[in-house]
Amino acid sequence: MTVLGTSVDRVRARMLQEARVDVLVATSYEGVAYLTGSVITTQRDIPARISAAIIPAAGEPTFVVCDIEELYVRASCRVRDIRPYVEFAQSPTRMIADVLEEKGLSRARVGLEFRALCAHYYCQLTSLLPEASFEPIDTTLDKVKALKTPEEVELLGRAALDTDEAIRFAYESAKPGMPDRQVAETFAHRLWTGRADSVAFVDLGAGPTACLAHPIPSERPMEVGDVLRCDVGGYYSGYYSDLARTAVVGKATPDQRDRYRKVWEVHEEVIAAARPGVLAKVLFFTCQRAFAKRGLELRFPHCGHSLGYGLHEQPLIEPYNDTPLEEGMTIAFEMVHTVPGGPIFQDEDLVLITREGGKPLSRSADWSEVLVVG
Amino acid sequence: MTVLGTSVDRVRARMLQEARVDVLVATSYEGVAYLTGSVITTQRDIPARISAAIIPAAGEPTFVVCDIEELYVRASCRVRDIRPYVEFAQSPTRMIADVLEEKGLSRARVGLEFRALCAHYYCQLTSLLPEASFEPIDTTLDKVKALKTPEEVELLGRAALDTDEAIRFAYESAKPGMPDRQVAETFAHRLWTGRADSVAFVDLGAGPTACLAHPIPSERPMEVGDVLRCDVGGYYSGYYSDLARTAVVGKATPDQRDRYRKVWEVHEEVIAAARPGVLAKVLFFTCQRAFAKRGLELRFPHCGHSLGYGLHEQPLIEPYNDTPLEEGMTIAFEMVHTVPGGPIFQDEDLVLITREGGKPLSRSADWSEVLVVG
Repeated sequence: MTVLGTSVDRVRARMLQEARVDVLVATSYEGVAYLTGSVITTQRDIPARISAAIIPAAGEPTFVVCDIEELYVRASCRVRDIRPYVEFAQSPTRMIADVLEEKGLSRARVGLEFRALCAHYYCQLTSLLPEASFEPIDTTLDKVKALKTPEEVELLGRAALDTDEAIRFAYESAKPGMPDRQVAETFAHRLWTGRADSVAFVDLGAGPTACLAHPIPSERPMEVGDVLRCDVGGYYSGYYSDLARTAVVGKATPDQRDRYRKVWEVHEEVIAAARPGVLAKVLFFTCQRAFAKRGLELRFPHCGHSLGYGLHEQPLIEPYNDTPLEEGMTIAFEMVHTVPGGPIFQDEDLVLITREGGKPLSRSADWSEVLVVG
Repeated sequence: MTVLGTSVDRVRARMLQEARVDVLVATSYEGVAYLTGSVITTQRDIPARISAAIIPAAGEPTFVVCDIEELYVRASCRVRDIRPYVEFAQSPTRMIADVLEEKGLSRARVGLEFRALCAHYYCQLTSLLPEASFEPIDTTLDKVKALKTPEEVELLGRAALDTDEAIRFAYESAKPGMPDRQVAETFAHRLWTGRADSVAFVDLGAGPTACLAHPIPSERPMEVGDVLRCDVGGYYSGYYSDLARTAVVGKATPDQRDRYRKVWEVHEEVIAAARPGVLAKVLFFTCQRAFAKRGLELRFPHCGHSLGYGLHEQPLIEPYNDTPLEEGMTIAFEMVHTVPGGPIFQDEDLVLITREGGKPLSRSADWSEVLVVG
């Protein structure tokens, strides 16, 4: 695994030939964080307050950012040319257009994140730069972001382990009679007091809510025999962690043990098959067949995704995705088995793609048999 | 204050005449939650997995949603016609186009959330419906969302009070020598164990990081004399809370007390002036003058915003905003004073607009003098 150069160098290497653009204008929270090093967390909650990393194929990059973030940006970012705008008084798209003009790029092929930039700003940019042409740059950025540096692997691995420990800690505190929400609280507190910057999401349910893809923790007291499931994540220096685990409260039935074991076996089979060169869709079919072989139907639309500053990054492991896996990718593989009319059994691990197959980075404990708690 | 009918009725009342569209297609997390009642929390982290609330001027609304959310949506939503799509296998925009065709609206004027819908889906829709015309519906939705029902005021008020109590609780635990991060942890834990669904954001800093607009809590031990400031929020049934408070660690200097008092006076002056009919920009200028009268410069681009399922909703209280305040709006007024080269002093309260002026809903304790903690 050798991922060399800065994120800007790596994007530039693909810009002219592959993406066929002269300049990249990244405006998403994730894209800006990736290209500049500045993680502007408020952009998650206030997407209208965009910033822009403007990366020409050659020459100095420029960073357009709301002036209330200027102090933070100057301290954190790798771009030297910072252009603060005053919100409401100045238009960020006008400022982007001016920067492109100044760089002699007003007739250029401009790469935009079509999957993140809103139609409002998109229409403004196309009308402010009538002689430019606009191309989606999403796929190129996806490819670069998917190949993790050793530092990213280290960070994501530590984040995943920390999150796994927090789940285990919370699960081990669970008891019949306790509201499932209390398990979520314990998890969140353990994450806050651990290595995370903050908690990103806590989807957790037990009993009747364990059937939902993304349950909101509830006040219902858990009962013996409940399936308890979570799909959770934190932020670590801006990067996501994302893991899912399933347990049973009090006492597991043979059927629950059996279903869990089958999901785990499928999980292991898919991870072992996750070698460089394998197409994402082929891995999805491997998963589907592994479920079918055990008499279970895969009813989930994917069985994994890359992650970074974004949660669902490419490649998604889904039946229409032709991306070959590469050494140095990290994929959150998640096996989801929905009992018809019943709960979901799910395991999700962060996995590093290596020549010997996938290497799980997120197992702080043995999860190969269903955990019985309380 | 009388806000009648469902959110769909209220949007429809403005659709044909004011917005001049025949059908509204809301695709943002906030818009969908508002119009359907289903809060699809994962859309915050996975925006590409859109759902769509399709509201024709007359006739049955339709809800297009990823099938993994179907169970939750059927249990929570007010729309009866639910169309699940299989992610990756089916295109959500194709399904939206088909629904419009089925409703005889393929040549209609279609209202879209230009400020939320990404350029990728926007370009797909315009090409799938070549005979339709597309209009921004953001302003119309903004106007409807800004007028809160009594139930919303109750919910937002309880959320704000709970958040204020959590801040006070966390601040009262703060001591010199404690990392500011521990104050953030205590706040987050109190919010999790209180009434919130979860924590939305915790921007908190002390000493050298109190100068940042949105500091990430740090391991640095707080020192006597540090300004400690937070700007924080939780989710409550999908709605945001958003409050900011400033304290001083150990012992406050006369200058700190004086600056805090001035910020509070400005805050009170602006809130008192927040009556129905006053334009947002006029309130901003009131704030600016109130600061200037006390020898302080307002260097922040706004001094308040509405909130709901979104954090910064219209009206924003900024110098270019002509929206008149109305009874029944709830505005998070935030006064921000940046000491040149030093920390930020900030107070933020949720305020209900009434005929007698603004009525703060978020004060669980007396914050009129600077709180000295530890």
